[in-house]
Amino acid sequence: MSHYVIISADCHAGPDSPAYREFLDPPYRADFDDELAERERLLESTRFTGDDEFQEEWFGAEEEGTSLHEIGLRGGWDAATRDKELDNDGVCAEVVFPGPDAVTGTMGAPFGAGFNPVATRSPGHLLAGARAYNRWAAGMCTESPQRRRGLIVAPILGDLDGAIAEIRRAHDEGLIGGVIIPPQWTGHASYTSHAYDPVWAVCEELGLPVHCHSGPAPREEYGEARGWMSVYGYETIFFTARPLWFMLLTGVFERFPRLKMAVTEAGCFWVTDMLWRMDMMATREHGMRKLVDPRGVLTMLPSEYFDRNCAIGASNTRRRELGRRYEIGVGNIMWGNDFPHPEGTWPYTRKFLKDRFWDVPVDETERILGLNQAEFYGFDLGMLKSLAERIGPTPEDLGQTDPAAFEKWEPYKQAGRPWLTDHEAWDVPPRRDR
Amino acid sequence: MSHYVIISADCHAGPDSPAYREFLDPPYRADFDDELAERERLLESTRFTGDDEFQEEWFGAEEEGTSLHEIGLRGGWDAATRDKELDNDGVCAEVVFPGPDAVTGTMGAPFGAGFNPVATRSPGHLLAGARAYNRWAAGMCTESPQRRRGLIVAPILGDLDGAIAEIRRAHDEGLIGGVIIPPQWTGHASYTSHAYDPVWAVCEELGLPVHCHSGPAPREEYGEARGWMSVYGYETIFFTARPLWFMLLTGVFERFPRLKMAVTEAGCFWVTDMLWRMDMMATREHGMRKLVDPRGVLTMLPSEYFDRNCAIGASNTRRRELGRRYEIGVGNIMWGNDFPHPEGTWPYTRKFLKDRFWDVPVDETERILGLNQAEFYGFDLGMLKSLAERIGPTPEDLGQTDPAAFEKWEPYKQAGRPWLTDHEAWDVPPRRDR
Repeated sequence: MSHYVIISADCHAGPDSPAYREFLDPPYRADFDDELAERERLLESTRFTGDDEFQEEWFGAEEEGTSLHEIGLRGGWDAATRDKELDNDGVCAEVVFPGPDAVTGTMGAPFGAGFNPVATRSPGHLLAGARAYNRWAAGMCTESPQRRRGLIVAPILGDLDGAIAEIRRAHDEGLIGGVIIPPQWTGHASYTSHAYDPVWAVCEELGLPVHCHSGPAPREEYGEARGWMSVYGYETIFFTARPLWFMLLTGVFERFPRLKMAVTEAGCFWVTDMLWRMDMMATREHGMRKLVDPRGVLTMLPSEYFDRNCAIGASNTRRRELGRRYEIGVGNIMWGNDFPHPEGTWPYTRKFLKDRFWDVPVDETERILGLNQAEFYGFDLGMLKSLAERIGPTPEDLGQTDPAAFEKWEPYKQAGRPWLTDHEAWDVPPRRDR
Repeated sequence: MSHYVIISADCHAGPDSPAYREFLDPPYRADFDDELAERERLLESTRFTGDDEFQEEWFGAEEEGTSLHEIGLRGGWDAATRDKELDNDGVCAEVVFPGPDAVTGTMGAPFGAGFNPVATRSPGHLLAGARAYNRWAAGMCTESPQRRRGLIVAPILGDLDGAIAEIRRAHDEGLIGGVIIPPQWTGHASYTSHAYDPVWAVCEELGLPVHCHSGPAPREEYGEARGWMSVYGYETIFFTARPLWFMLLTGVFERFPRLKMAVTEAGCFWVTDMLWRMDMMATREHGMRKLVDPRGVLTMLPSEYFDRNCAIGASNTRRRELGRRYEIGVGNIMWGNDFPHPEGTWPYTRKFLKDRFWDVPVDETERILGLNQAEFYGFDLGMLKSLAERIGPTPEDLGQTDPAAFEKWEPYKQAGRPWLTDHEAWDVPPRRDR
């Protein structure tokens, strides 16, 4: 059997924060020095500690430098370590987001620039921080262009024109994977506004998919009562994905038919109900009739825009989510190992893939693990196939050896999107007349 | 076959706005007169117009006074019309929320009091408006106590002590169905805060379930671009249900073990994934490990609190939602016809029930259509059974005549909540060793 070409749609890279100094425009270096001096205090609020068992697994090590935390952080900037860890995981290529340290938070770019850029500083600072990251990332990603697609941090909420210029600059410098937009817009026009059309236009022109990545949530609404972090953990999916429906339902993909968008590391379980409910509104289902028909803005069904323009960087995809793949769209799910974050599958990816995919048909596994990513981001599959021969798992390795195991999916495949086919999986064979 | 006792967990009552004047404390009447004078202008922003087909169905009539709009509004305050319409729908009893006019909005209580009380006026005005509605509703509901359970509008965000006193007063006056809390708290402490414990305490003491009802959403974030109303329609489910996870995850049901809570007219499709994700956090699933364990606050699984303390007023329940009933909990779903709102099933309830329930086992249908409501709200089933003999549909009427039709659910029933049983419906019979 041939080897899977696995492309992780969700990885993180970056150096330890002080290293950004040389990539920062000189006028901002003094302020960054102040930020570094306050670093310990600032990091307190972004630290995830987990319980003792997690602490032991993540930070424990026989020798210095060999804990998962240390290896992962070194892999954040050292290409040799990084490639070795990806090889071990069976991952041929990756899409690179900022912020490798998602536990103690030590590797942030200046002024909060990262995969969840929040507008807490002046527009000038935000843009300078983004530029510093983008410059660093271009260096990292252009070293092995076949294997890495870097993303541009684009703080479009403050200095819109400056952010657009930075998108062009960073793209020219080699960050061709896409653009990361801020997921929350408190105090700014929402993503329904046509004011952002120039951003969508440049992304469409340069073939740069727009990204939102998990992490955001209105922390200030959670208060200080014990348990607030669970509320955060629960809600961040919604707030991460939110720009997608703001944009889709107000016609961004109607105005920019070639614009692409991905929501990354927010799972994909919610896509089924999102498409169902959007399509119900568009088709004026009984309970939706009194709302204005989105077809006043859209010429296709919402799910059709989703299929044409969007994809989900589903990262550590759960069994439950794979069970919904015919509703989400097998062609829309892009798996990722989230290296080097502990909520991802690294360094256990081979085991996770076997547990999750053992009964998923090979052609669908191929799509979700790599083909979708290759098409969405324009990776050269030919180049990656030879690497896959060496490191990629085979269907056999994933336990996909018994054709009978795949049969269970037939009713789900037939049902597809039940609100469009008019039958759910439990209705297959189609319900009798009644 | 015996007749179903159907109890609608979601109905709306109220008079035309000017009628509230006499129920309002005199010092607030002048301000209410000003509000009434501005009524037309205020109503513009809350009007749902739908398309031509909807307009024709809802407002069209051969004779004056016979359109669905006119019948429904009359049923908002005229008990004879109301009972006749419920009879026609096969509904024996109802839980009464404010706001019968959800199309043109003409029947709001003073100062925005209603099923979605928003803090736009002074705390004194909000409380006065709520009191006016509560006084009116007590009159309506105590006339036929067997058939109607009225809810108390409780604006707990402004004058907390005043709202608690009003809960006691209105309860004594006969509103024993529960309490409606504001679903959004902009500018106030969020529902994670222990500052609201006195509210939960009085609700627990008096046996009044806390309610959130659909409608809320941060309108100001949607801008003015065409299509914004679709964003509203999509997001209102999240913002309606939001207090549930704020309260559950920060231990409100741990501190108040007999407190009950219902989320009404926000569907129930989302409950499956909510429970799954909350339980994953509590059991430190791989991707959740770095978040603090909610068991630091909770002594049971989140889904266990949900089963013990919560229920869903699922209103116009879709087939897709009924297909998830073993995950949501057959005992947690409370159907409703949403009389007299056009997004509900009135006046077509008998047809809707047949389309939706034809293959749902009789004992489960019984629970979802009435038994759950009777237990949650304390209706006297004995009294209602004789009414059901006259107006309630039978299993035969719902097409539940073929025992073979029920067999399809066996794998779903066995799977239950898959994250706890460790197998999904597609894994039944349990997956083989691999």
